[in-house]
Amino acid sequence: MRALFAGRLRFFDTTLRDGEQTPGVSLGPDQKLEIARMLADVGVDVIEVGSAAASEGERDAIRLVADAGLSPEICCYVRALPVDIDWAVDSGADSVHLVVPVSDLHIEKKLRKDRDAVLRMAFDAVEYAKERGLVVELSGEDASRADQAFVAELFAGGVERGADRLCFCDTVGLLTPERATVLIPPLAALAPLSIHCHDDLGFALATTVAALKAGATMAHATVNGLGERAGNTAFEALVMALERLYGYHTGIRTQRLYALSALVSRLTKVPLATQAPVSGEMAFTHESGIHAHGVLRDASTYEALPPELVGRTRRILLGKHTGSAAVEAALAERGYHPDPPRLAEIVRRIKALGDEGKRVTDADLLAIAEAVLAIECAPVLSLRQYTVVSGSNAIPTASVTIRVNGEEHTSAATGKGPVDAAIEALRRSVAGVGEIELLEYHVDAISGGTDALVDVTVKMAKDGKMITSRGARTDIITASVEAVVAGMNRLLRDTDT
Amino acid sequence: MRALFAGRLRFFDTTLRDGEQTPGVSLGPDQKLEIARMLADVGVDVIEVGSAAASEGERDAIRLVADAGLSPEICCYVRALPVDIDWAVDSGADSVHLVVPVSDLHIEKKLRKDRDAVLRMAFDAVEYAKERGLVVELSGEDASRADQAFVAELFAGGVERGADRLCFCDTVGLLTPERATVLIPPLAALAPLSIHCHDDLGFALATTVAALKAGATMAHATVNGLGERAGNTAFEALVMALERLYGYHTGIRTQRLYALSALVSRLTKVPLATQAPVSGEMAFTHESGIHAHGVLRDASTYEALPPELVGRTRRILLGKHTGSAAVEAALAERGYHPDPPRLAEIVRRIKALGDEGKRVTDADLLAIAEAVLAIECAPVLSLRQYTVVSGSNAIPTASVTIRVNGEEHTSAATGKGPVDAAIEALRRSVAGVGEIELLEYHVDAISGGTDALVDVTVKMAKDGKMITSRGARTDIITASVEAVVAGMNRLLRDTDT
Repeated sequence: MRALFAGRLRFFDTTLRDGEQTPGVSLGPDQKLEIARMLADVGVDVIEVGSAAASEGERDAIRLVADAGLSPEICCYVRALPVDIDWAVDSGADSVHLVVPVSDLHIEKKLRKDRDAVLRMAFDAVEYAKERGLVVELSGEDASRADQAFVAELFAGGVERGADRLCFCDTVGLLTPERATVLIPPLAALAPLSIHCHDDLGFALATTVAALKAGATMAHATVNGLGERAGNTAFEALVMALERLYGYHTGIRTQRLYALSALVSRLTKVPLATQAPVSGEMAFTHESGIHAHGVLRDASTYEALPPELVGRTRRILLGKHTGSAAVEAALAERGYHPDPPRLAEIVRRIKALGDEGKRVTDADLLAIAEAVLAIECAPVLSLRQYTVVSGSNAIPTASVTIRVNGEEHTSAATGKGPVDAAIEALRRSVAGVGEIELLEYHVDAISGGTDALVDVTVKMAKDGKMITSRGARTDIITASVEAVVAGMNRLLRDTDT
Repeated sequence: MRALFAGRLRFFDTTLRDGEQTPGVSLGPDQKLEIARMLADVGVDVIEVGSAAASEGERDAIRLVADAGLSPEICCYVRALPVDIDWAVDSGADSVHLVVPVSDLHIEKKLRKDRDAVLRMAFDAVEYAKERGLVVELSGEDASRADQAFVAELFAGGVERGADRLCFCDTVGLLTPERATVLIPPLAALAPLSIHCHDDLGFALATTVAALKAGATMAHATVNGLGERAGNTAFEALVMALERLYGYHTGIRTQRLYALSALVSRLTKVPLATQAPVSGEMAFTHESGIHAHGVLRDASTYEALPPELVGRTRRILLGKHTGSAAVEAALAERGYHPDPPRLAEIVRRIKALGDEGKRVTDADLLAIAEAVLAIECAPVLSLRQYTVVSGSNAIPTASVTIRVNGEEHTSAATGKGPVDAAIEALRRSVAGVGEIELLEYHVDAISGGTDALVDVTVKMAKDGKMITSRGARTDIITASVEAVVAGMNRLLRDTDT
């Protein structure tokens, strides 16, 4: 059997350049260094850190990363201009990603030049960059809409003048796997060729793989598929597709992929898509009855790959599609073993909650189970009142009164905001009962008006036991207090019974 | 040239069934009807409304949609069980999507049966469903991991017993375009064949298209790619890829695609992925200097398709990558025409703000422009103080004092929460100056702790002029007040000068 790919595939990560061009995203030098370190650790071959022409901060960032002594090649995006190449040299980059437009549309409408002018600029720039000691990847922008004879002429001339690598840029995501299969081979014959795809029509990943099969040896990609508009080929999906679908061992440390995705999401402030392959919140989460049932018996029935392979864990949520197998498993974990009719009733009530459009949290599940099993458990803790004062000239201050074991406790606290103050006061008021940790505080994005529903989810722990709980109100403070009180109650109750 | 596809392609929408199985998603009957109406309006051929076995609410939903007299075929998901088929008939569905596992993994691990038992169940169910007058689509679950001889045996026997259509389910997203090209033709020869793909490894869309090219005639898809784990083939991306990349006229009313995506996102509470093709917030947004420059000269330079084609508009954001062309255009819209050196200085300051990781709002742009152009404009309005009181036994109440035109105004208001009260008080305090509308109030998702930074963006208007403004603080009330005061200031100032 002929090998699927020409040889060892290489990964050119452009999260810090094309990824950072995602509208609204901006990374400072320290942030770029933090991501670059992790990219090096994960095992990419080239890191494109930025565009020298963009801003002062950008040049500082390239210098900082180049000075860090990481093992991947450090690359700088440049136009075919001596000033950009000088900047790249000054920043200490190993290589330049030298981009020139190759479609007539880009040459005429954007540059307002002609093909000959582009060839001259490109060849001069390649020669100058080589003189200055840089590795050169000569890149044809909008290549998929270009006259392929012109692309070949530019690339061949560039290689003659010393370009080390070439890159086919599908700038607006119009290349298909089928066309890649035809267009790539003649260009890949000239020099090592990279493929750079965009996802405007959802084909970035498939086209990248097709180009690699057709002879390209390096893939441009970004973590989480960041990039202009619909973004670039997503690195984590590309790696796992090559490994799992095409049987190619990438050499990437896949167990770190999720941590990398989470880091990039945190620093760029672009949330991970809920359903992104590999890194999305739901990628290894199961709810529906049939599916969760299958997963409980053998995870591979409904998983394309084991979550541990990319540094994640499996999660089973309860909701309107939940079957009894998932509920039984969740209750068994908590030490409850209802008989079949009672289990059926618990499942019915969970589905009813789901029918109302509610997410079913651990706290909901246990409250239902205890009601059905007629377990006597008055709330351990009840909220008597909370009061918050806040303002431009006031330190956010809250008081909370709770009743626990028949006694009332009132505590007060200040905080960085009214919610912070209220939760801190609540924490203090239960200090006598045990050490409760607030592990995560999450508020869904609020859209609409200032009177929109605010959905708060908290994750809390006590003595190694963890629980999720939720509050939903038009008032963010009440929603937060409600979620935390429900969670505290569950944690304290579980401990007592 | 041979036609790319076998004949007219049909669209089977499973947003309301497989899409609703997205963990945490639950749609009530009225919500399902609202989405179904829009799907009919957009032009899908089949709407799978739900799974009869799921819950009481689900059966109500199927009945409600079936009774609405929509033109698409109304389909109900069933297992190979008489009880499910009876439910489907009772609900008034036109057809059933009759699913049986076909891989040995699913047959043995999940069902704990053998192939013969599956054949018997499937054939009996097909015969019974036909007796009861239903259109039958017989579907092989996990077909991509199955022995293809067994899939063919099941499908051929099903067709003999009256199945009208067949469906190849790539249940965990392991099918590739290459394998679809091989596996689909023999099955498509038996009866009209649907293709149902999952996106666990990012290949759902490409594989769906490959299967359609190989002879499948109907594509299963969900709006926004909703579905278990990483979801299903995204309907809007599939339609636009067929139209734009494969030159196939789908007959879908593409101008309604974005409204459909937005409706589904609102009702399922699954946010649109920031960079989703076609429907993502950034899909038609431009920031970087080179790109925005190109777009201003000719939008097709950096767009795969005109945004209007899918019911959207183009947006240009400012940030650290912004070039002077985009800034000049934005200022010209506001009536400012700086000379080249002043324009360069404005661009430098915007990039500096971007380097700090800030999003540049309209308010920021104008403040910078006025500073550089040395336009005298003291703030029209300044905040002297705000105070908020809130609690479990208190109606959220706020007072605000502003100084405007040399006079102080204090107003108080109550609200549905402390933020709502503060913004209402603020609105009252400027009532004398003009009618300012708060069009949108958005808070980014808050993650981490209760002391995390809260990012508030508001869109406001006065006399037809619109502006965006931002506040970022650890205190959600202060962040909100700050954003609104900055926006009011800009709106009032623009009016005065």
